[in-house]
Amino acid sequence: MDLRPIGIFDSGLGGLTAVREIMRVLPGENLVYFGDTGRVPYGTRSRETIIKYTRCDLNFLMTYNIKAAVVACGTASSIALPVVRGEFPVPMVGVIDCAARAARDATRNGRIGVIGTPATIKSDAYRRALHALDPALQVVSNPCALLVPLVEDGRFARGDTVAQLLVREYLAPLLERGIDTLILGCTHYPLLTDVFRDVCGPDVALISPGATAAADTKALLLEQGLLNTSGRRRQSSYFVSDNTVGFARSAEMFLGCPLEGELTRIEIEKYENRETE
Amino acid sequence: MDLRPIGIFDSGLGGLTAVREIMRVLPGENLVYFGDTGRVPYGTRSRETIIKYTRCDLNFLMTYNIKAAVVACGTASSIALPVVRGEFPVPMVGVIDCAARAARDATRNGRIGVIGTPATIKSDAYRRALHALDPALQVVSNPCALLVPLVEDGRFARGDTVAQLLVREYLAPLLERGIDTLILGCTHYPLLTDVFRDVCGPDVALISPGATAAADTKALLLEQGLLNTSGRRRQSSYFVSDNTVGFARSAEMFLGCPLEGELTRIEIEKYENRETE
Repeated sequence: MDLRPIGIFDSGLGGLTAVREIMRVLPGENLVYFGDTGRVPYGTRSRETIIKYTRCDLNFLMTYNIKAAVVACGTASSIALPVVRGEFPVPMVGVIDCAARAARDATRNGRIGVIGTPATIKSDAYRRALHALDPALQVVSNPCALLVPLVEDGRFARGDTVAQLLVREYLAPLLERGIDTLILGCTHYPLLTDVFRDVCGPDVALISPGATAAADTKALLLEQGLLNTSGRRRQSSYFVSDNTVGFARSAEMFLGCPLEGELTRIEIEKYENRETE
Repeated sequence: MDLRPIGIFDSGLGGLTAVREIMRVLPGENLVYFGDTGRVPYGTRSRETIIKYTRCDLNFLMTYNIKAAVVACGTASSIALPVVRGEFPVPMVGVIDCAARAARDATRNGRIGVIGTPATIKSDAYRRALHALDPALQVVSNPCALLVPLVEDGRFARGDTVAQLLVREYLAPLLERGIDTLILGCTHYPLLTDVFRDVCGPDVALISPGATAAADTKALLLEQGLLNTSGRRRQSSYFVSDNTVGFARSAEMFLGCPLEGELTRIEIEKYENRETE
């Protein structure tokens, strides 16, 4: 039994879709979220910068005495997590590996589709993670430049003609190749689930990295005896590195419920060096 | 006769559509462009920050001994230009005022439409500029959140179904109000001119702030005897505050021709204080 919070970070607010899933499967856990909204996006930055930012973000979360860290940012998960994992005394879950394992388990015909931002697809992180699990998997990917702006503009409901048109266009080459499993490789995409479902039909498994990370976090806490079974009401704290106003407005959309708990702006640059404990 | 270059700056790469128009109407002029790609966008920042960045950008351009400055950024034009204009010893042209005057001159029924990013429309800068010229003008505006990502994804040609659908949706409330003049209030929008033209029909005048700024710059140079009539080949220099790779790729799209001249990354923060001359 462990009352310490779970720490989650993302380069922006998309990581709140992972928080949503963690709240669902681990309703008793306290949470600390950091969204690096002042330095978003990570995907276009250099390897060194991504590692530096990730260390920074984890240093900040560590000041809240977290018991586990969830790296909800795909870029940080693939580039920085393998480097920094050993530097922190808590177990870490990254979205890429969780989603790759879930996709490997879900596919029957071995054909897996991956969609994401142009930076994520160019990084080839999902393909590498999938091939590390099973080199025989066929991976078909497609960058979807307009889905993040679309979701951020609130246009993700079933009835949105532009959303429907774009998703159909982006998924066409993947469906033509006969994929039976689709990794929604961007934290924003779960909001478009209804549209993806309509376009893919019922026979394609949709893998949401946030949901798989939440499931893996639960398994990890169970295994290591770290669950919070106090039955006390959950406490959540949210931190950002830019304006809190814009964040509060969008947070509800990504969480699927109003933001509970305090929201604070911090100067993340101050956490470049780890505090001595 | 004056060989000194014209300085142009924008918060990013959209200002290159103004450069394109300046090259067209002033083919003999040398140019220095600065795109503040490391600090884009300006529209969501505080008034003080926008003024500070604008001073910085102008300080940098002044080191190239410019004879005139074109503020291609709508946010900097409306918020900072009135404040900083007197601080620099060169004439300055801002996109907002030029476009407002051109729209006032173009309209016959006094109903002017304005489209732009959510930040530009929220700032109400075009409406204020139009009403300063003529309080009787009816101004109808609409924020278009998805047009910048659409253009940056290269989807602006007549045949693009998503572009057509979005433009039709964004312009519908303006056309219903009977506008006969439309200000394309974002530097990215001139690339969508064919789509706007198809949706608006032939009777709505399209006002491109970059083109009106180019025309005003020409008039200003003529009037003040500052034209470069040497007949020498134009020299252009481009500077950005972030990665040059991404910029070079997109620049051709905005310029409508390959980028000629050197492209250099600078540390714009170094120009916060004006160099003593």
